[in-house]
Amino acid sequence: MTIDRDSIVAAAQRLGGLVERTPLLEADLPGGRVWLKAESLQTGGSFKLRGATNRLLQLSQAERRAGVVAFSSGNHAQGVALAAARLNIPAIIVMPSDAPALKVAGTRAHGADIVFYDRATEDRVTIAAALAEQRGAVLVPSFDDPDIVAGQGTAGLEVVEQCPEPVRRILVCTGGGGLAAGIALAVPQADIVCVEPKGWDDMGRSLEKGAIEPVGPNPPPTLCDALQTPLVSPITFGILARSGARGVSVSEEEVKGAVRWAWEKLQLVVEPGGAVALAALLAGKVPIENGTVATLSGGNIDPALHLAIVSGSVA
Amino acid sequence: MTIDRDSIVAAAQRLGGLVERTPLLEADLPGGRVWLKAESLQTGGSFKLRGATNRLLQLSQAERRAGVVAFSSGNHAQGVALAAARLNIPAIIVMPSDAPALKVAGTRAHGADIVFYDRATEDRVTIAAALAEQRGAVLVPSFDDPDIVAGQGTAGLEVVEQCPEPVRRILVCTGGGGLAAGIALAVPQADIVCVEPKGWDDMGRSLEKGAIEPVGPNPPPTLCDALQTPLVSPITFGILARSGARGVSVSEEEVKGAVRWAWEKLQLVVEPGGAVALAALLAGKVPIENGTVATLSGGNIDPALHLAIVSGSVA
Repeated sequence: MTIDRDSIVAAAQRLGGLVERTPLLEADLPGGRVWLKAESLQTGGSFKLRGATNRLLQLSQAERRAGVVAFSSGNHAQGVALAAARLNIPAIIVMPSDAPALKVAGTRAHGADIVFYDRATEDRVTIAAALAEQRGAVLVPSFDDPDIVAGQGTAGLEVVEQCPEPVRRILVCTGGGGLAAGIALAVPQADIVCVEPKGWDDMGRSLEKGAIEPVGPNPPPTLCDALQTPLVSPITFGILARSGARGVSVSEEEVKGAVRWAWEKLQLVVEPGGAVALAALLAGKVPIENGTVATLSGGNIDPALHLAIVSGSVA
Repeated sequence: MTIDRDSIVAAAQRLGGLVERTPLLEADLPGGRVWLKAESLQTGGSFKLRGATNRLLQLSQAERRAGVVAFSSGNHAQGVALAAARLNIPAIIVMPSDAPALKVAGTRAHGADIVFYDRATEDRVTIAAALAEQRGAVLVPSFDDPDIVAGQGTAGLEVVEQCPEPVRRILVCTGGGGLAAGIALAVPQADIVCVEPKGWDDMGRSLEKGAIEPVGPNPPPTLCDALQTPLVSPITFGILARSGARGVSVSEEEVKGAVRWAWEKLQLVVEPGGAVALAALLAGKVPIENGTVATLSGGNIDPALHLAIVSGSVA
């Protein structure tokens, strides 16, 4: 199955009315004016509803009855749970036992069954695949799937429609690269910059090397739970490599600074993993020119953690 | 000069591209699903840019050269300052010396000159009128002006376009009533509910009595700096009275609860005066039926106050 810009346009038509057209906010950074795509205001609190809905809408009636299985630390979990609930499809979500409580509660609130696993000792792919096989259910990957990538890319089409300037560069918060790859296809005229937390910058290193590299052993702890992806996929890496994308990484301090900045200056609650692209701009790691856009990919953060970050009391 | 629904439609055409089309967010409250018009994400942090831009666009070239004067505790100040800066019009803003620091900084950042007055001992109307006369400048009122009301009403037109349900009721955060009156004209089929802080509920009492009543002597302190209007105007009161609008009031505790709820559940920073309509819904003071909408009118709150409210540490 191939995926190209037409796949994104088709996804946008399919999703019409089922996902929010989130605002593209103008923001004056110390380094210049940029445009921020506020997917933190998407239904379910992140862009993940786009891909999940695009995938689930294309299931057969028999597949819908058998249900879906997904694994995710939280945002894809909520996206799949919400899309499934709207389409009356049973959903099982495999989540790490240390997933943010807010994301677990949000997933459960949409009616999904949750199966927990231990991030240190168990393999979520194996668990999810076994569950899917037991029930004859469809596994819905969080990024390694053309329909998921196409759905996420619809955010890119919106950016082009919404931005009053020609879009020249888009910084994308990157875990597995589904959003970045989708946007790269949707906006081929823009430079794509994949932003990752330091130590979890496998997409950036892979793009530099020209081949997929996993996250190194014992990656550092990060507040960016949404971006803790150990290995990107041939689909997302391939699209991004062909588009000439590159990567930059940001420190935990820079991420916290961006969460604080979004709260103070944009009136938005953004989760750490959704703030890395803004962090890269605030830290001056990518030059700001006309037509510079960054994604604010998600806002699902436990209130206590947000409070600790904005008050400066988290280490 | 009359103002009617056509005035709002004309304002919307005039403002095209100059103000944000803010999102209408779906929210599941304990009492049911509602729609929230997030004007806190408007450029300048509140709906005030709409009316200010609509007014300033209609000045003659001579008037533009002479400049404008406005008085405001902060949101109208920022709206006028920003609209004036964009149109290259000099602006003087008369602000109370106890205006929130964030609002003062925002106004100054847009290049306006600020004149402070003492809320307890000086009269801002007199000061502003004298400044306007000295300079031959045009006074831009914050609500007592048909063009201002028409501009604010464009938010109502957007709500009707954005809401997937027929709009039956709109709760509007109310100070002088410019936004409420504009929305009442824009959405004549909806019940309009003006929401005010307790002790500052002069619009509600005026509507009940059928004649304008000022705020009583020694009104209580309120966190809602944006809604501390001592007297509404014949224009706004007249429109709202003819539309059959009514008022409800909310306590300071209810306002703080709504600020907290918006932060925790909507990923939005909302100022106290912009949270009163949500507060009325959360407190069950207005029934929630299909097509219930509330404005989140502004997000300009000092970070330290927001932190204190969401952490529960403000009395």
